[in-house]
Amino acid sequence: MTAVEPMPSATKAPELLARGRDLVEPSLRNVLSRLDDHTRLIASYHFGWCDTDGRPMTGSSGKAIRPGLTLLVAEAVCGTPEPGIPGGVAVELVHNFSLIHDDLMDRDTRRRHRRTVWSVWGDATAILVGDALACLADEVLDECDSPYAARAGHALAVATRELIRGQVLDLAFEQRDDVGMDECVDMALGKTGSLLGASAELGAILAGADPAVCEEFRSYGRELGLAFQLVDDLLGIWGEPEKTGKPVFSDLRAHKKTLPVVWSLEYGGTYGQELADWLAKPGVPSEDDVQRAAVLVERAGGREWALAEAGERVRRAGRALYLAGVDAAGRAPFDELSRFVAERQL
Amino acid sequence: MTAVEPMPSATKAPELLARGRDLVEPSLRNVLSRLDDHTRLIASYHFGWCDTDGRPMTGSSGKAIRPGLTLLVAEAVCGTPEPGIPGGVAVELVHNFSLIHDDLMDRDTRRRHRRTVWSVWGDATAILVGDALACLADEVLDECDSPYAARAGHALAVATRELIRGQVLDLAFEQRDDVGMDECVDMALGKTGSLLGASAELGAILAGADPAVCEEFRSYGRELGLAFQLVDDLLGIWGEPEKTGKPVFSDLRAHKKTLPVVWSLEYGGTYGQELADWLAKPGVPSEDDVQRAAVLVERAGGREWALAEAGERVRRAGRALYLAGVDAAGRAPFDELSRFVAERQL
Repeated sequence: MTAVEPMPSATKAPELLARGRDLVEPSLRNVLSRLDDHTRLIASYHFGWCDTDGRPMTGSSGKAIRPGLTLLVAEAVCGTPEPGIPGGVAVELVHNFSLIHDDLMDRDTRRRHRRTVWSVWGDATAILVGDALACLADEVLDECDSPYAARAGHALAVATRELIRGQVLDLAFEQRDDVGMDECVDMALGKTGSLLGASAELGAILAGADPAVCEEFRSYGRELGLAFQLVDDLLGIWGEPEKTGKPVFSDLRAHKKTLPVVWSLEYGGTYGQELADWLAKPGVPSEDDVQRAAVLVERAGGREWALAEAGERVRRAGRALYLAGVDAAGRAPFDELSRFVAERQL
Repeated sequence: MTAVEPMPSATKAPELLARGRDLVEPSLRNVLSRLDDHTRLIASYHFGWCDTDGRPMTGSSGKAIRPGLTLLVAEAVCGTPEPGIPGGVAVELVHNFSLIHDDLMDRDTRRRHRRTVWSVWGDATAILVGDALACLADEVLDECDSPYAARAGHALAVATRELIRGQVLDLAFEQRDDVGMDECVDMALGKTGSLLGASAELGAILAGADPAVCEEFRSYGRELGLAFQLVDDLLGIWGEPEKTGKPVFSDLRAHKKTLPVVWSLEYGGTYGQELADWLAKPGVPSEDDVQRAAVLVERAGGREWALAEAGERVRRAGRALYLAGVDAAGRAPFDELSRFVAERQL
């Protein structure tokens, strides 16, 4: 394994991610051109490349953390990000397939400050566009000129199924009031850890790393994914609306059983009990009520725990990197990415 | 290529299909065991293996034409159906993924004389169970111990995308009154031809046939698929409710632009014009009205055309078999299958 210096042009996380997007986007646009006109327009809208009428736009097409990670790992393994490109395209396609389906299932009307696909074109179209992106992900990997294509395809299929399992658990939790921490972490590892794990793993696989090294990169991505989810959960309660695109306390208002909430219920003593009573109350809570619930999570220690746990997960990610053989010189861009994930918008 | 005698135990289509089901079902059950309990229960219900509470049932789990075809082709190519088994499992998984999503999109409440997944467990669950089956299809092919696994995976991904494109067109047609025959055939080749094409193609690929032979088997499956769709469209108008599980004239009542209807509109002269006027009328048609529309399709020649066209597609399928190198001795089971598809329940 070749340890590489971080490229001078990409030492900070935003530049790393932008570089990843630049390398992946041409292939991504190319593969989307296989879709029929209607499906392609909608996929392009979802990626932020055009408006609902197909007029080209430049705008946010998401952070592209997953392809960025794939390319970074490929570069760490073999000295150049190129072999990771099909992997980056595939994980970005799977990620967006899951976003389109999740927005529909959760009936979310906004994403990246724009209307969601189902809310513009209807349920059936959202299902089909999502399904089509998932197919394209398979095609990209099957077609890539790599002796490791089949292994990469298998890793992605397993991760995608894990991602779906996470969403199954998430939906089931909505109907339950006895969700424990273990299953909540399991759900988050499925929903967020699995695909970030696969993003790193695919970079390693396609760059020709040994299976044991690929597995460590997968662990790195999964731990980073859990840190990402913990921060996401904090932002879902205390995030600034102009940055998150969602109203403050939105996850509490929706009674979501996120990690800091479930931790508070389990370990938060009397504050946790009070929070459980609050969650059990039927009807739409008032703004004062929601604010009170946020205070309960804070007093129960859920906020502090989530912050500390995100840090712990970043440390575990670092340990996996070490075991994967990334040396001190090669670590800088990974550390940048970890910091970006753990400290974003907080 | 080895020409094989039809096995004495499977010379008739129902026996051929039952044999296919028997060979594929153990692997299918095995791969479904990877799913979480909730998702597995629902998938098992959909396959007809249990009731909504998970109590084992023996019942109709569909005709299993696709895996039957995969195994038949594998046997024709290499003398034994075994190499085709992972392909049979994969096409059956993709077929059922598409059924679960299609039932939701079409808001159909009954399938195989039972309630559909979305109508029992809701939209989100139907989306997720379908997505999970699609992932399992990839996994099965990626894992199979075959030097042709990657080619098979690619062929299936392309066919699945074609299938989705067919459904996109089908939904778009509902909003249009200018659908022409060419695009209607294109839609049917997508919705029904693509996966039957891949079912045959995967059998050939996994049995080690040359690419040109695989392509002929794909053509065979696509033509058979169009014949299947034409018969399905006839059954959707004139089928006996106790056999189809749907009320008589159901497709007409739903104003579906099926092949015989579109043919009648385009080539049916004054009857076609009358049918167009009927379709343009808003509101729910009366029973007399629907019966009148069926008479119009018949007088316009749509019924006769669809029957003749189904026969023509079966002939083209036979020609593809010949080009694939299936000799007279090996043809018998394929002819049985064609007859089964073209003459079922008419």
